[in-house]
Amino acid sequence: MTEDVALIVGGGPGISSSCARLFAKEGMRVAVAARNPDKPVLQTLEKTYGVRRYAGDASEPAAVERLFQSLVKDLGAPTLVVHNIDGRVPGIFGKKIDEADPGLAFDTLRNSAYSAFLVGQQAARLMRENKANGNGAKGTIIFTNASAALKGYPASGAFAMACHAKAGLAQSMARELMPQGIHVANVPIDAAIGWTQEDGTRAHRRAGTTVDDNMADPDHIAQTYLQLHRQHRSTWAFEVVLRPWVEKW
Amino acid sequence: MTEDVALIVGGGPGISSSCARLFAKEGMRVAVAARNPDKPVLQTLEKTYGVRRYAGDASEPAAVERLFQSLVKDLGAPTLVVHNIDGRVPGIFGKKIDEADPGLAFDTLRNSAYSAFLVGQQAARLMRENKANGNGAKGTIIFTNASAALKGYPASGAFAMACHAKAGLAQSMARELMPQGIHVANVPIDAAIGWTQEDGTRAHRRAGTTVDDNMADPDHIAQTYLQLHRQHRSTWAFEVVLRPWVEKW
Amino acid sequence: MTEDVALIVGGGPGISSSCARLFAKEGMRVAVAARNPDKPVLQTLEKTYGVRRYAGDASEPAAVERLFQSLVKDLGAPTLVVHNIDGRVPGIFGKKIDEADPGLAFDTLRNSAYSAFLVGQQAARLMRENKANGNGAKGTIIFTNASAALKGYPASGAFAMACHAKAGLAQSMARELMPQGIHVANVPIDAAIGWTQEDGTRAHRRAGTTVDDNMADPDHIAQTYLQLHRQHRSTWAFEVVLRPWVEKW
Amino acid sequence: MTEDVALIVGGGPGISSSCARLFAKEGMRVAVAARNPDKPVLQTLEKTYGVRRYAGDASEPAAVERLFQSLVKDLGAPTLVVHNIDGRVPGIFGKKIDEADPGLAFDTLRNSAYSAFLVGQQAARLMRENKANGNGAKGTIIFTNASAALKGYPASGAFAMACHAKAGLAQSMARELMPQGIHVANVPIDAAIGWTQEDGTRAHRRAGTTVDDNMADPDHIAQTYLQLHRQHRSTWAFEVVLRPWVEKW
Repeated sequence: MTEDVALIVGGGPGISSSCARLFAKEGMRVAVAARNPDKPVLQTLEKTYGVRRYAGDASEPAAVERLFQSLVKDLGAPTLVVHNIDGRVPGIFGKKIDEADPGLAFDTLRNSAYSAFLVGQQAARLMRENKANGNGAKGTIIFTNASAALKGYPASGAFAMACHAKAGLAQSMARELMPQGIHVANVPIDAAIGWTQEDGTRAHRRAGTTVDDNMADPDHIAQTYLQLHRQHRSTWAFEVVLRPWVEKW
Repeated sequence: MTEDVALIVGGGPGISSSCARLFAKEGMRVAVAARNPDKPVLQTLEKTYGVRRYAGDASEPAAVERLFQSLVKDLGAPTLVVHNIDGRVPGIFGKKIDEADPGLAFDTLRNSAYSAFLVGQQAARLMRENKANGNGAKGTIIFTNASAALKGYPASGAFAMACHAKAGLAQSMARELMPQGIHVANVPIDAAIGWTQEDGTRAHRRAGTTVDDNMADPDHIAQTYLQLHRQHRSTWAFEVVLRPWVEKW
Repeated sequence: MTEDVALIVGGGPGISSSCARLFAKEGMRVAVAARNPDKPVLQTLEKTYGVRRYAGDASEPAAVERLFQSLVKDLGAPTLVVHNIDGRVPGIFGKKIDEADPGLAFDTLRNSAYSAFLVGQQAARLMRENKANGNGAKGTIIFTNASAALKGYPASGAFAMACHAKAGLAQSMARELMPQGIHVANVPIDAAIGWTQEDGTRAHRRAGTTVDDNMADPDHIAQTYLQLHRQHRSTWAFEVVLRPWVEKW
Repeated sequence: MTEDVALIVGGGPGISSSCARLFAKEGMRVAVAARNPDKPVLQTLEKTYGVRRYAGDASEPAAVERLFQSLVKDLGAPTLVVHNIDGRVPGIFGKKIDEADPGLAFDTLRNSAYSAFLVGQQAARLMRENKANGNGAKGTIIFTNASAALKGYPASGAFAMACHAKAGLAQSMARELMPQGIHVANVPIDAAIGWTQEDGTRAHRRAGTTVDDNMADPDHIAQTYLQLHRQHRSTWAFEVVLRPWVEKW
């Protein structure tokens, strides 16, 4: 039986929920941290899959430290941490450079990139003390990212900054931590992301289209995360870009 | 039961053998094509796993056409094709630009990049007619590549050309074929590659080192290829770079 | 005679001074903004080249707005803006991920990437109203960057974040503003940077080495900036990586 | 007075002619090599600018060797070599992977990438013996490239191969030769390229458009080549992507 302890930072009906369900089904002890842990979708995860919920602002150093302390006390040291906050702050996403509010640009950087730094730092500190598993790994840290990590699109300077920053952090951490047995991955999702609805049906088509699977299915994203976690250390992938078959790139 | 028909072009004791074994164990009908199909390692694959062997020079248009015709007749249309020829032509690899023999430089381009074009072309023609499977895919074409696809190292101009060419081909084919339901992937292995020895033990350390798993294990590379083949079309990865945990990059 | 008004944000003895001198010699009206505008090197620029000095914290929205207002009043609307703050915050640069102080990581992001956003935003607002010059350009915005923009090195997560963020911002702004006639460039200097000493001699060797020109000469960096500014809009370069001839990459 | 000897391989009314004119005006001794050196545009270069014409197939090793021998005898050892053959072989450019003729795909690789190898090799051999100039450089080798070097577009697999190959070669040569004092550059032109007409007017608009300068002006491309050639070795650029202000990327 697995000794895995998984923490997902950021909690919504998409990738976070899909990861929580899949990891729980695979026998991991699973926790989700969110600003508002009382969202119905997270309560359902607790009821149905025994997922532990934590409250906290991932862009506050003290809050992140407390989160990991609670996790260790409650479930044990993490072996899999997913940072799943993308930082599309309302009111700035899609704004032209001269219309973008400086305060919201700042929030974008803090919510996304800076919280990734804080979460990655705590994960690294704890995982370093883990025992290596059968694949030679002490733990896995995965950063969900967006296509803005690959390309700076017009009219989204702040988001481009945040996504690029997260990618740069992930790459630095990968070069530093992989030789210590910690697998670090950056996973830009180059697509609109679907979700699984209350009744179990999945949203897999963009509004107004008739093509199947033109949105990234979060259940399949979670599958890739699980494969990354189980990859043998002789063949680690750092970056995996996921996109639907019909996506333009 | 799977209806998969897998063809591996290039046959040696490393990735090709690992793929052949894994794909056969997963229930696929498997074929390997090589210039010399009578190598002991390929005969063993036939005896132990029922792998079909084909002879042919993958850089000859007519030979590649015949290979695919025979495959269709013998096993059916391919659903998974792996191009696994890396083109490190003896006598030129590692040579400085002013010492590199022009004829060998030409052979490097032809053996690696041009054969990838010919194999990819035949695979695309046939797969287009396949029925989509449960993941929405008509087939998968995987190009094994090297770190020279990511970075042109000094004293290896011809190899850098060939690997970059193969990467460019793969990317063009991915953009063209993915929307038609054919998954195309480029997999640079940024490492020395180990192999499995006759007696089943695997070579996983570079000569003269004491660190485990500092070579890419071809059994694990094959595992990634299988995952790529089974990826749902809502979340296809095009490029996956694999490297051991301790590799410098 | 040129109508150019150049603003250099960040003031030290390296790239900023070289730019100020070169731009002044080319007939531009030149301003430098720095937290401490009373540094001797900046006073010398004023005395010898008539460079105007401004005080201000480039990571404060209101300060940046005031800076540009003063500039317009004193010298006119800018046609060339160089953001030359690299954000190597003392106390965190070179620190491992588990030793990096979260507060300093935050400062790194703010001083480098966020100030680039604020400066770029003001520059874009003003340049948009400029008349196109003989090369079809209304203005040029140049971001000095570092090799950490190209590659996330180990033990420098915060710096990798900041440099990647700046590169992402630059790319987003380039895609948005170039079609409006504003040339945006990202210039990672992949090297140690030399400087010109008080007595006019230039530092061009790394300490302890005997190879000439193994540091990037800021006078030559300034030359590239000038060429970017004068590039005709039919052939704009967005990214130029500069490195000394002997640099490893 | 300059001692520069410039050789341009590939001769047409676009970049080659613009380079020949500019280099001649700057006082260099200039040669152009082409399969058909009797094209009117090349005859005009000879008459007006004293440009020397050479015949030869740049994808034939012996022909390339003879070309450089003649050049050395006639004008002296080259200090600036431009490889300006892009390999858009008629009959295959724009073809889908299943419609592309294998023989033409082969020609594409040979005409573009392989000729770059042959030309680069001869240039490197000769430049190594040059004396360094005032900027510390023994010579400059520039490869004109296309956007297909940056991105593999659909329905152009062979061209993607050739352009990627040329980029890989250039990068390998840059890492090998820069520390020997030879500046190597790859210049992808991410645009349609205009040309200068017989009567001196320049073509600078795409057919059917009314936007000025939406084609790359070869006179300005030549300007960038000259700047690369004159760059001081403390700040060499390897890759410069040129695109018009309104180009989508």
